Amino acid sequence: MENEEKLEQIKVASLDEILGKKFPVLDDGFVRVVDYMGTDESIVQAARVSYGKGTKKVTEDRGLIRYLLRNRHTTPFEMCEIKLHVRVPMDAWRQWIRHRTANVNEYSTRYSLAIDSSQRTSDSEWRMQSKDNKQGSEGFFPVEIGGKLTEREQEFQNFAREIYQERLNLGVAREQARKDLPLSTYTEAYWKIDLHNLLNFLALRMDAHAQFEIRSYATTIGNEIVSRWCPVAWEAFKDYRMNSMELTSMEVEVMKKMLAGKQEETLAAAEKFGWLRKVDGKLAGNRERIEFEEKLTRLGLVAPWK
Amino acid sequence: MENEEKLEQIKVASLDEILGKKFPVLDDGFVRVVDYMGTDESIVQAARVSYGKGTKKVTEDRGLIRYLLRNRHTTPFEMCEIKLHVRVPMDAWRQWIRHRTANVNEYSTRYSLAIDSSQRTSDSEWRMQSKDNKQGSEGFFPVEIGGKLTEREQEFQNFAREIYQERLNLGVAREQARKDLPLSTYTEAYWKIDLHNLLNFLALRMDAHAQFEIRSYATTIGNEIVSRWCPVAWEAFKDYRMNSMELTSMEVEVMKKMLAGKQEETLAAAEKFGWLRKVDGKLAGNRERIEFEEKLTRLGLVAPWK
Amino acid sequence: MENEEKLEQIKVASLDEILGKKFPVLDDGFVRVVDYMGTDESIVQAARVSYGKGTKKVTEDRGLIRYLLRNRHTTPFEMCEIKLHVRVPMDAWRQWIRHRTANVNEYSTRYSLAIDSSQRTSDSEWRMQSKDNKQGSEGFFPVEIGGKLTEREQEFQNFAREIYQERLNLGVAREQARKDLPLSTYTEAYWKIDLHNLLNFLALRMDAHAQFEIRSYATTIGNEIVSRWCPVAWEAFKDYRMNSMELTSMEVEVMKKMLAGKQEETLAAAEKFGWLRKVDGKLAGNRERIEFEEKLTRLGLVAPWK
Amino acid sequence: MENEEKLEQIKVASLDEILGKKFPVLDDGFVRVVDYMGTDESIVQAARVSYGKGTKKVTEDRGLIRYLLRNRHTTPFEMCEIKLHVRVPMDAWRQWIRHRTANVNEYSTRYSLAIDSSQRTSDSEWRMQSKDNKQGSEGFFPVEIGGKLTEREQEFQNFAREIYQERLNLGVAREQARKDLPLSTYTEAYWKIDLHNLLNFLALRMDAHAQFEIRSYATTIGNEIVSRWCPVAWEAFKDYRMNSMELTSMEVEVMKKMLAGKQEETLAAAEKFGWLRKVDGKLAGNRERIEFEEKLTRLGLVAPWK
Repeated sequence: MENEEKLEQIKVASLDEILGKKFPVLDDGFVRVVDYMGTDESIVQAARVSYGKGTKKVTEDRGLIRYLLRNRHTTPFEMCEIKLHVRVPMDAWRQWIRHRTANVNEYSTRYSLAIDSSQRTSDSEWRMQSKDNKQGSEGFFPVEIGGKLTEREQEFQNFAREIYQERLNLGVAREQARKDLPLSTYTEAYWKIDLHNLLNFLALRMDAHAQFEIRSYATTIGNEIVSRWCPVAWEAFKDYRMNSMELTSMEVEVMKKMLAGKQEETLAAAEKFGWLRKVDGKLAGNRERIEFEEKLTRLGLVAPWK
Repeated sequence: MENEEKLEQIKVASLDEILGKKFPVLDDGFVRVVDYMGTDESIVQAARVSYGKGTKKVTEDRGLIRYLLRNRHTTPFEMCEIKLHVRVPMDAWRQWIRHRTANVNEYSTRYSLAIDSSQRTSDSEWRMQSKDNKQGSEGFFPVEIGGKLTEREQEFQNFAREIYQERLNLGVAREQARKDLPLSTYTEAYWKIDLHNLLNFLALRMDAHAQFEIRSYATTIGNEIVSRWCPVAWEAFKDYRMNSMELTSMEVEVMKKMLAGKQEETLAAAEKFGWLRKVDGKLAGNRERIEFEEKLTRLGLVAPWK
Repeated sequence: MENEEKLEQIKVASLDEILGKKFPVLDDGFVRVVDYMGTDESIVQAARVSYGKGTKKVTEDRGLIRYLLRNRHTTPFEMCEIKLHVRVPMDAWRQWIRHRTANVNEYSTRYSLAIDSSQRTSDSEWRMQSKDNKQGSEGFFPVEIGGKLTEREQEFQNFAREIYQERLNLGVAREQARKDLPLSTYTEAYWKIDLHNLLNFLALRMDAHAQFEIRSYATTIGNEIVSRWCPVAWEAFKDYRMNSMELTSMEVEVMKKMLAGKQEETLAAAEKFGWLRKVDGKLAGNRERIEFEEKLTRLGLVAPWK
Repeated sequence: MENEEKLEQIKVASLDEILGKKFPVLDDGFVRVVDYMGTDESIVQAARVSYGKGTKKVTEDRGLIRYLLRNRHTTPFEMCEIKLHVRVPMDAWRQWIRHRTANVNEYSTRYSLAIDSSQRTSDSEWRMQSKDNKQGSEGFFPVEIGGKLTEREQEFQNFAREIYQERLNLGVAREQARKDLPLSTYTEAYWKIDLHNLLNFLALRMDAHAQFEIRSYATTIGNEIVSRWCPVAWEAFKDYRMNSMELTSMEVEVMKKMLAGKQEETLAAAEKFGWLRKVDGKLAGNRERIEFEEKLTRLGLVAPWK
């Protein structure tokens, strides 16, 4: 650390280029960078404090960042901080705000008039309830049906605004007038978070199981912003976290037998774990087995019970 | 600590009596205690770990708790934990959830049908916008006007439910069908928090400036629950925090001169702090001066400029 | 939730049996349970709040807990809370305290006399510096050398206590007299944490790479306490987290080619990832390749470059 | 917010001047700024997001910051972040690290050699145990005694280093060799925190009751760094927090009677609160009464029982 006199005020050219730029999300939302602190290099600097060494070559820096991320050494990633300005429907914001390790200043509809914009769903965007996944959607409605849903929504959102305006005109307190605003109403906020916690947010919200709306924000933040801000950490995040595959202890056991060509033992193990229960002579739905089969597919393998 | 062998599983008789009981709040909300850990005595035990001493007499315990709270020794209060089950309109929940140091499991309208209940405002409960306070209300509308507002609200909430039901009937994904639910829709949650952070929550949300709706919840939690759970800490909280008075360095300076009978110096100091600016020959509105005047009133004094 | 009226005050028989019992760790440390809130069933209850359903059969409860843990649904695990009383050398405490999401009351050497006990290393416990791992140890010294190290340590710790006592006898302030206490000095604390964060702590500190001393505490907490407190969650934690295997996106790619029997492509991919760099005709040390080889071994496979 | 397009990358000239500069603390410690994000203006920007307005005049900005701090609107202050590099004795670091809402990367004595420097106390710096305050010090030893204490400390610290070196020379693992390092050993860390939490840290650690060593760091951070970084917030912090005076509900009651000239009622109230208990005909020590007397003194008043 003796010789470590370089300061971390290096700015990232490619991020500076988009500073303040609004990346549109959904029909009227956006994300933009207000300010940031630190870069890939700050992660390295922080790690080197722990290791008591000065900075080295760029290639070693890349290796170090990748090592840290792969081995879940999280504190160096906390040394980078970013502040975003977001405009997002209250419905998605309700999910967003559940991430507690961030700083937030949200637009106040107690103090000010509610933003006069609600997220509208166009005729091609209405999603059907998933049958397999109780908390998911699957496929879109044809535009004939979608068109009617959009029309009704428009009618409803107009009524909502009318009611809100009526109350304000009468002199109802803003804090009470807002009580029936639809969750589709846009809100805005400054949201500040460190890179480690942002990556946690992205891992959850860029995931295929995340709801489309918040996933759209997460994807924009990841692909447009983090990729420019800390490109090495971003690449490592994709390699070691987003696109990694976790095998449970059961999966390791079954796979080992399977790769050894021991079919009977493989089936016995799967049986033991309750994966092969049958209903009416057919394999019953079993989440763990299905997840395992998907992993096998990714590895180019097929389960012996298939 | 040598002799400290007593365990903290003492249960509080008066809290156990209300365990699970629903305390109604607003028109269809409630708060109830699901579980708790620790009592006034646990605060004492934790403090004595720091001080390395065994338990003493009950009177000393009371003095110790009061000393800790008065001097903002916060960690012993973190040793008590409570889990509540609450039913609250989403609008109030949006404020509630801003307290980040709590554990939360909220009812999911992505997985399940939205609760079929919205907070309704009766004809006598409509509040007027405060003129002085941009984020407050002041006084109620006469029931003739209130009645019309309530009627319109009913009409609107019915429409909201109709739209929601239409979508579900068509097979729209629950996660999308909910997007226009009004903020008045009730949600439920398990909310777990330690006593220190709960007192912070109560200090903010029982305050006269807090919005009526969340204040109603906070008041119920404080008066009905914390008062039974940790009565000594609760009393100390009221004496040293809720009902205390903070004088700024300016207020101390002005008050000292005032109590010394030095009228000119008092006025000069107030002038220096910008409290006595005049507009059209009359004192202009000045928040700091007004706050000071209110404190003087509480002490039975009157400002010399009045 | 309508019918969910059962409260969570069910106590865990097997945990209640050990309540207050000191589990010894190291030469003079311990861990004991002071209090706890919640059980396996509370995890289920919390999850069912989200899903809006009443409790079901025990077998389904087990499945639900396992599902939640496997899919990193963390909030239901936050609904269980435990309070431990620990005695631990300051050196290990320095690592312990880095876990920020816990409540702590530590014994104060500012207020009280330092605990008159230091962790002593016996003649068979001195560990050699690992050659491969800069922050690890590997193997033990023979007792002849160990004996001398222990003797010198004893001499040193006696001197440390002498100095401390001298200062106190002279009337030096306790807060200053303690300034040269060795890190081996024992401290005590109440440590309160929720199950989710405790499992994070255990995942890190029970890991083979954790330092022996803190690993001893973590192992005791896991095997003796959590296993009794929330046995179903504990089993799931071992199956899905402690004993799981994570494959990076690179490892998946190489393994897929390998399992398809495409040797050349396998080597080309490994080459591309920099795993096969040679120095003097031999494979150079490469962490990622070595980690992958270990995973292959666990699956009964051998890398083609071996 | 529509017109709010100005970004927050304004740098603070007076802080930039000292960027990287080491402010010495104690005999061999220091604090220096590595990086920062935000300025006074960022606090204003964040508040204006809530209020939905663009930036205004500088004088209004100052008023707004002061208003926010006075009324404990804390979230806008969380929008400023600073990263410090500190060198501090482990003893003080043990207190420092108890502030959980910060990001930390500490020098690792598991990975690297311990820093070869221990805090030394010179002959004029040895403090006597306070008689009134169990966790405080009071006055200094004469240099004749101090000189001997310093000599013994030197002897001890030399022995400590000798033992440490012996172990390393023998090949003892670094993670174990360090186990007896004295708490006076210096450590280093990167410490990153937002302004709101930093002010909380300063309020506690700049306080007269904080231990001298950590108070020295806090004072340097406050007076040298925060004063340059966010001068308006810093001034408000001093006016409304550091130098404010809090009156408990009891003190308000007694003072009101006292200012009304009702001596008997004043004494009766003080009596009721247990402030006037006598032992051997003299007022017994009573913390609350003494604290009140000190506040009266600051206001130029004298208690009627004196």
